[in-house]
Parts: sequence; C-alpha cells; structure tokens
Amino acid sequence: MEFYAEDATLVVKPGMNATGKEQIRKAFVAIAAHFKNQLKVRQGKMTVIEGADTALVIMETLLDIEGQKEPIVRRATYVFRKSDGGRWLCAVDNSYGTSILDA
Amino acid sequence: MEFYAEDATLVVKPGMNATGKEQIRKAFVAIAAHFKNQLKVRQGKMTVIEGADTALVIMETLLDIEGQKEPIVRRATYVFRKSDGGRWLCAVDNSYGTSILDA
Repeated sequence: MEFYAEDATLVVKPGMNATGKEQIRKAFVAIAAHFKNQLKVRQGKMTVIEGADTALVIMETLLDIEGQKEPIVRRATYVFRKSDGGRWLCAVDNSYGTSILDA
Repeated sequence: MEFYAEDATLVVKPGMNATGKEQIRKAFVAIAAHFKNQLKVRQGKMTVIEGADTALVIMETLLDIEGQKEPIVRRATYVFRKSDGGRWLCAVDNSYGTSILDA
C-alpha cells in the first residue's frame, strides 16, 4: 500500500474502480480471498515513459492462479507521479490496459 | 500545443521520444510532412481513469491516411495531470498504447 498515492485509483474490473488507499486495500483483500490467497503476480516485459513529473508504466503482468497451468497475461497500464518529497507514487493502477475498451 | 505540459513526452515511435514542447512541435511538423499534410485523426471509444490529480486516458485513435480506404486504428494511452492552475495538461502521449511492448 505504501506505493499508492492517498487518492489513487485502482481499476478492480472494467467499470468498477476503488479510489483512495482504504478502498484499494479492501479491494486487494477481497481479490486475494477470491483466489484463496493463491494468486501470484509476476512481471514480464516493461516500458516506462516519463514526462512532466509523471510516468506511464506499461507492463506485462503474469497472474498465476491455483489449478491453472498457464498464467493469465495482461498488459497493464500504471500511472506514477512524483510526489513533493520526490518519491514516485502510483496514481492510477489499471491492470486491464487498453483492453478496458472492450468491456 | 497548448494542451501539453512544458516537459511532456510524446512517443514518436517505439524507442523514439520527443520531450518538451519544442521537440514535440517539431515532431508533429515532421509527421504532418511525412503524410503530406493529409493525415486526419479521429477519436473512437474512450475511457478516462482519474486518480491523484492525474488521469489515464485510453482512447481508440483512428488515423485516416491519403490513399488508404480503411483507417489505422490504435489504442492510445495518454497521461494528463492537473496543473497548479487547475488546467489538465498532457504529460505523456503514447499513441502506441500497450503495443509498444511488441517493438
């Protein structure tokens, strides 16, 4: 949770967002419970494009789910912004990437 | 140009970025010249996800090119950030979206 900005937004699923650390924390707890605490997240290819104290991170996200041989592969989009203290915090977490337009 | 932050970044093509208004302006002039000033850009489906004074915009971008019947369709990713004056300015312009990982 420490990597999120206070008023960050997480796309839980297309059309359903969690905003603010408390909602995001609850969403992660619910997601973990849904996968019986067996969900593992790995990182694949990644590109970072920085501009105007923000960074667009495009990253392959591999989700290993109990009982499935192959991981689910998503191309996620994350926005980070540089805080006043110089730390980079996640402002928008959209693991669906551009496929959110299909929803 | 007025919609870009001073130190915004434009992905000209995967691996080649223009940073700052002057570089971005020159890149657009070169792109326009390459397409003999016949390139037309249209907007398709769009989703905006706002968090922590930034916004991730995911948008179908349709590019009409002289002599081609069908437009090129991209799923672009743009990051906007709210400036001190409250205006939204583009910080990262990546028209390649998540397909930039294929480059």
